[in-house]
Amino acid sequence: MNPLAPGSTIGILGGGQLGRMLALAAARLGFDVVVLEREADSPAGRVAVKLIVGDYTDEAALAELAAATGLVTYEFENVPADSVAWLAERGIEVAPGARALAVAQDRFEEKSFLNAHGAPTVAFAPAGTPEEAVQAAASVGVPALMKTRREGYDGKGQRWVEHAADAAAEFAALGGAPVILEAAADFVRELSVIAARGRDGATSVYPLAENHHENGVLRRSIAPARASQAIVDQAERIAARVLAGLDYVGVIGIELFEMADGRLLVNEIAPRVHNTGHWTQDGCEVDQFEQHIRAVAGWPLGPTHAIAQVEMLNLLGDEADGWAKYAAEPETRIHLYGKRGARPGRKMGHINRVKPL
Amino acid sequence: MNPLAPGSTIGILGGGQLGRMLALAAARLGFDVVVLEREADSPAGRVAVKLIVGDYTDEAALAELAAATGLVTYEFENVPADSVAWLAERGIEVAPGARALAVAQDRFEEKSFLNAHGAPTVAFAPAGTPEEAVQAAASVGVPALMKTRREGYDGKGQRWVEHAADAAAEFAALGGAPVILEAAADFVRELSVIAARGRDGATSVYPLAENHHENGVLRRSIAPARASQAIVDQAERIAARVLAGLDYVGVIGIELFEMADGRLLVNEIAPRVHNTGHWTQDGCEVDQFEQHIRAVAGWPLGPTHAIAQVEMLNLLGDEADGWAKYAAEPETRIHLYGKRGARPGRKMGHINRVKPL
Repeated sequence: MNPLAPGSTIGILGGGQLGRMLALAAARLGFDVVVLEREADSPAGRVAVKLIVGDYTDEAALAELAAATGLVTYEFENVPADSVAWLAERGIEVAPGARALAVAQDRFEEKSFLNAHGAPTVAFAPAGTPEEAVQAAASVGVPALMKTRREGYDGKGQRWVEHAADAAAEFAALGGAPVILEAAADFVRELSVIAARGRDGATSVYPLAENHHENGVLRRSIAPARASQAIVDQAERIAARVLAGLDYVGVIGIELFEMADGRLLVNEIAPRVHNTGHWTQDGCEVDQFEQHIRAVAGWPLGPTHAIAQVEMLNLLGDEADGWAKYAAEPETRIHLYGKRGARPGRKMGHINRVKPL
Repeated sequence: MNPLAPGSTIGILGGGQLGRMLALAAARLGFDVVVLEREADSPAGRVAVKLIVGDYTDEAALAELAAATGLVTYEFENVPADSVAWLAERGIEVAPGARALAVAQDRFEEKSFLNAHGAPTVAFAPAGTPEEAVQAAASVGVPALMKTRREGYDGKGQRWVEHAADAAAEFAALGGAPVILEAAADFVRELSVIAARGRDGATSVYPLAENHHENGVLRRSIAPARASQAIVDQAERIAARVLAGLDYVGVIGIELFEMADGRLLVNEIAPRVHNTGHWTQDGCEVDQFEQHIRAVAGWPLGPTHAIAQVEMLNLLGDEADGWAKYAAEPETRIHLYGKRGARPGRKMGHINRVKPL
């Protein structure tokens, strides 16, 4: 694909905050954006030139999207494979591609892929029945984290197994869907790396972020994280292997565990812009959203070095009502998503508190 | 007015690049944007939640705007006074207000206002007839610049008068509309200052930009401009006087002449975000577009110190076709407006070349 010229249209599957921030970045580069989203009123839909309301599996909606653009990306890794295939058959480029989606949508495939490409993870085993669940728990060791192989995010769809014998009951509690059991990661902290790969195979890696979760939801990122050169080297090696292994195009988020012995393990990968990369909006010259648009559009990647030290804080639920306080803080940059209902725990916005490096 | 809460809608009169960049800034803060614009396809209309197609004087269009929002701003100082009055009568806040527009729309009123508020300008005199034009040229001295009092921008609607006796013919050549004659400013360079005033009367001033024009159109700005403290002090004093004198709310652009003797004269004021402030997008933590939205929405103003040295280059006409070259420059940030036709000289985008301070 030749680089996509400004003035062209880019399609985005998903109308949430990631889609919104992608759309704003695309607009800055002179692109038009068409959003396909289930909801008639959505954060991304309100900044797009055109909103197609429909399910990702709705062929009429997909046809409308295909008529509007030759290039589609997404904010959400659970885009159905059939929808991507449907678009690809009609000559529509979908980036990141079907392989990245297939790997990211199934936690067993994901960890298998990672290990096969030299990106270490905790021990893991799949299970499709209660009996297999018990065996898997015994094999990876307890306590083990049971997760559905597909779907689930922000801590949903997962349960801890304290004794191998309990695994059958936990399997049932998760609904009987195929699961993966993961050994507990005795990590000292959670890091992440946001990386990108262009259509020409060039890659770029942002500085590491240190992440803090609460109730399974990201609360806070600090970036660039203080880290030894050995840690940075491992992260960059992992990113390079993952990007090459997936023949990836776009921005990827890679969540890491830093172990007491100084090793990094990959927790999970997200084939899209990532909440732990929001700090780049105010900490880098080209943020992850523009970088993603550049990559999928076939443009050269932008610089990724940090120009500031950032603490990113997610605004969950009614925390976003504190906007007036944040607006009065000179060091605080505000990013709000325009969501209508501030349900408890819902990501309504984030702030980046910036100071000189 | 209480601060406008995120999730509210802001109306923008004008669908060009300034409206587009205002809309993107508003979206980042969680606002929705409605644009009123004559053209059905426009840079700002394509990133707004709603586009109302109509003339600024079209009452049906204004009524639609008034139904959608309680706060309206504009990208263009020639918004008709009657339209602003029409909106104000219906309780719609228009910012910056009617006084700023009235002053900015008439070059004689503008210079009279400036001088009355201690902001020096070149000598000037109005003329409504060929005879008055000759007298005015004699009084301000030749060569003098004759400009229509209203309308005209980027060097349009102005002519040089070399001999006072020629003023009658030049008056006719400009169509016989009321004019102003201005003494030639023997300046050493052109500077500008972008300033803002909030609803609480607080003001903030960005560092000076040094500007270079070609054929009456801005080609290049360098900011922060090298300037003595005496120059900076004068610029800040001028900005403070203008903002207070207009009881201003929003961002204003003030074009300045630096004279050989170290004095600053005001060339003109633009009651809106300004082309010479585009450098703030990559040179400051809060750019002029977010600052304007903050001000009109009643939010506290953001910081205005420079975090980088920027050279802003306008991309005129087919220069924007060089996007691929610019995208490959690590120091270059790209801003394209999504305009459809690259007519010669038309502002299609700009780049900010950034280096550390």
